[in-house]
Amino acid sequence: MFELSLKGPQSGDPFLDVTLSAEFSQLNRVLKPEGFYDGGGVYRVRFMPDTPGVWTYVTKSNQPELDGQTGKFTCVEPSPGNHGPVVVHNTFHFAYADGMPYSPIGTTCYAWTHQGDQLEEQTIASLRRAPFNKLRMCVFPKHYVYNTNEPVHHAFERTDTGEWDYARFNPQFFQHFEKRVGDLLALGIEADIILFHPYDRWGYAMMDAETDDRYLRYVVARLAAYRNVWWSLANEYDFMMERERMEKLVDEEKRKRLKTEADWDRFFQLIQQSDPYQHLRSIHNGALVYNHTHPWITHASIQNGSAVADFGRAGLLRDVYRKPIVYDEVCYEGDIPQRWGNISAEEMVHRFWQGTIAGTYVGHGETYLHSQDILWWSKGGVLHGQSPTRLTFLREILEEGPAQGLDPIDKWQDVRTAGVRGEYYLMYFGKERLDEWMFELPGKGLSEGLKFQVEVIDTWEMTITPIEGVFEIVPEGAYRCGSKGDRKVTLPGKPYIALRICRVQ
Amino acid sequence: MFELSLKGPQSGDPFLDVTLSAEFSQLNRVLKPEGFYDGGGVYRVRFMPDTPGVWTYVTKSNQPELDGQTGKFTCVEPSPGNHGPVVVHNTFHFAYADGMPYSPIGTTCYAWTHQGDQLEEQTIASLRRAPFNKLRMCVFPKHYVYNTNEPVHHAFERTDTGEWDYARFNPQFFQHFEKRVGDLLALGIEADIILFHPYDRWGYAMMDAETDDRYLRYVVARLAAYRNVWWSLANEYDFMMERERMEKLVDEEKRKRLKTEADWDRFFQLIQQSDPYQHLRSIHNGALVYNHTHPWITHASIQNGSAVADFGRAGLLRDVYRKPIVYDEVCYEGDIPQRWGNISAEEMVHRFWQGTIAGTYVGHGETYLHSQDILWWSKGGVLHGQSPTRLTFLREILEEGPAQGLDPIDKWQDVRTAGVRGEYYLMYFGKERLDEWMFELPGKGLSEGLKFQVEVIDTWEMTITPIEGVFEIVPEGAYRCGSKGDRKVTLPGKPYIALRICRVQ
Repeated sequence: MFELSLKGPQSGDPFLDVTLSAEFSQLNRVLKPEGFYDGGGVYRVRFMPDTPGVWTYVTKSNQPELDGQTGKFTCVEPSPGNHGPVVVHNTFHFAYADGMPYSPIGTTCYAWTHQGDQLEEQTIASLRRAPFNKLRMCVFPKHYVYNTNEPVHHAFERTDTGEWDYARFNPQFFQHFEKRVGDLLALGIEADIILFHPYDRWGYAMMDAETDDRYLRYVVARLAAYRNVWWSLANEYDFMMERERMEKLVDEEKRKRLKTEADWDRFFQLIQQSDPYQHLRSIHNGALVYNHTHPWITHASIQNGSAVADFGRAGLLRDVYRKPIVYDEVCYEGDIPQRWGNISAEEMVHRFWQGTIAGTYVGHGETYLHSQDILWWSKGGVLHGQSPTRLTFLREILEEGPAQGLDPIDKWQDVRTAGVRGEYYLMYFGKERLDEWMFELPGKGLSEGLKFQVEVIDTWEMTITPIEGVFEIVPEGAYRCGSKGDRKVTLPGKPYIALRICRVQ
Repeated sequence: MFELSLKGPQSGDPFLDVTLSAEFSQLNRVLKPEGFYDGGGVYRVRFMPDTPGVWTYVTKSNQPELDGQTGKFTCVEPSPGNHGPVVVHNTFHFAYADGMPYSPIGTTCYAWTHQGDQLEEQTIASLRRAPFNKLRMCVFPKHYVYNTNEPVHHAFERTDTGEWDYARFNPQFFQHFEKRVGDLLALGIEADIILFHPYDRWGYAMMDAETDDRYLRYVVARLAAYRNVWWSLANEYDFMMERERMEKLVDEEKRKRLKTEADWDRFFQLIQQSDPYQHLRSIHNGALVYNHTHPWITHASIQNGSAVADFGRAGLLRDVYRKPIVYDEVCYEGDIPQRWGNISAEEMVHRFWQGTIAGTYVGHGETYLHSQDILWWSKGGVLHGQSPTRLTFLREILEEGPAQGLDPIDKWQDVRTAGVRGEYYLMYFGKERLDEWMFELPGKGLSEGLKFQVEVIDTWEMTITPIEGVFEIVPEGAYRCGSKGDRKVTLPGKPYIALRICRVQ
């Protein structure tokens, strides 16, 4: 990240009165990030160069002292571990900009940046030891069950009468937030930044359209140069426009501030226009699924635990959207009375495997009751559950897997097998407790004599047991293949068993 | 239907040279169907009035003898059994224009109108005794496995050199086709008319864009006034644009005639503009699902047997599309070697019930081997399978059910129960063989003391067995309800059992 700092006017309202952007040029390319006011008379323009070499810049502003500033710098080769931002890869999957595959194993700590430094540092320490490479997190503080504490910072200044002054951002709030985004970057974690959410007592969910738009441009100006940023327009976007809420509202002015589907479309287009790097864009639903076929959606972010609870469901949305599918909320491992927050660790891991063999991705979350209401799901802290270790195991399997990602092998006929035809198969048996399995694969891409190795994976015990010898393909009918000698594989008669079947010749 | 017949020019090419339409007016409404040339110097304009009373008309044409013809007629009250065309009702369901509910129980006889009168009359006789109230049928003849016979009529005339003259429709072809549409109307069957399909050796799948569009306008002009018409843009639309086909083509001109997604969008918009009655519009997929969120799609027509093969799948597409979902192809009851055509009758009926309890609709088809290749799926004839009788039984249950249609009661948590909260529940156990069931329902919409009657439905044996006494609601926790005295229902320990639970007080 390159950051240009400039001194400028402090009088008036710099957030409203001052325009600032810069053009960064290299050869025949120009990228035009907007700048932002960071308080104390300091203006900044941040830039994320995407190719090494010399870049020149010139600023544009309606203020003489900020306008026409020029300079140049040299972008060096990326340091080890920097693979660039994550992009969509191979229609249904993700990769870093340099081509290295990226399989999201996400979690949520919605309000972790609003908990004070002690707890936030603990969260960071937990993440360092956790499997997660994506974290869903809200910009604004959260008001909800188990979330009644006041945040440390607020996004706006107050007027003399104590009201929020929506025309004046509080730079401290955003400085703190982006520090945490940077902490995640250092851990190799993508920040899936939730720009709006309905769990609110401060007014962030009910700002007017002008404030909404100014806020979005400000966030993009500040954060787009962080390479680990993903834009999630909202958590449960539809709960910000629902009727029940409307009917409680007597204030006509507030009623107008309920979001409409057109608002969400506008927000997406605004971000699409103002983010020079085209970070990933999605939106997360409550009960009403957004139209993820819109061109501004890069991947479908879905709340639906049921979709990954059993075979043959999760993959249906691949056909519909032709984009990566991320089941970002599938209920939480935990023990709270709410049914969305009390699935077992086994069930959570099962849902990840269901998503995986459907060629989709799944998000984790944890809601164990805590004496101080520190539930990982929202505040971070310490992970108490049993699923994360198993997700580390799954992540290793995915990272050892084919670079192109796992796709269904025979989508309408075999709901338990994903992989790459003829090369790599991951088969999952879910809650079935099989004692043996007769070698059999969908036939497409296989031919007589090809040889495979079989490994038995216990997804809960985290063991990988190779089966001795090779399995040699024998076609059986039009659609399936078996193995020479009709070889069988002994299985442990337990649930949550998978097979990894790799070509050896 | 009102039909205006006019004498006009026979010289030149009436299909290309003559424009004809009429404006039908009643009070402040005007509908403008196009007319068509029907051969032998006869031009017709057909009109489907949608309200009783006096209608006046005036024709418009570029030919003096067809232009400015005026007249009026009185539309009488609909005869018994005429409920008007089917429209979307209550987001996910259908009803006739007069409000009477319509639950599609469809079947397919793709090429039945191309088999000659003897077999066609036999098909009509079979349909008279069958449960089906919707039939998928192609305009063009079909070339495919088990479909190698030549059609009786062709859609175009031939040139002097024996080539198709795409500028001259063969009125006989269309007269015959619309006669069959009328036969279905008389049986109360909706004609789901498939306008294009890839199974072709005559050239219908590879016409140029101008011919495609002219053909669509001609079909709409002839058929839109039939109230039982639905427009299905294609069967397996994507197989008309696939790469494999393209790579076989050496002729650059033909290669250009492969359809693109933009072609399908254009066809939809053309029909949307030319059909004054806005009949239902859909498109059926092969492997690639069309974007059914487009505003010109009235309901999603889906090929995917897997989606209705097990619990919790079919309903996912309701959330995505917010339109009626019709699984128009879910494999066929039959015994052909192809796996899409060899599911059992039990499995076919199971798939209908899966679709039903997911708040969606399912289509039937049958492919039993036949010495003369007369498979119902394509040619009609006689039904040989065991599923239709069970579909009659299902249809009766649906017609006795709530007028608003069946919706999931608790969509992400209870995948086997549909109905109307607090009033009517249809619960299905699929392949489970339960001996008993403890009365339990999703809690929303229920309150202590409400009373219900329970009936055990054997969906295969077609029996409905009422359970003695009433079940009185007792709330149990936040999400479920039980019954006073924890009443249990004895079940027969067989698969394919359902429960109908209706409020009695």
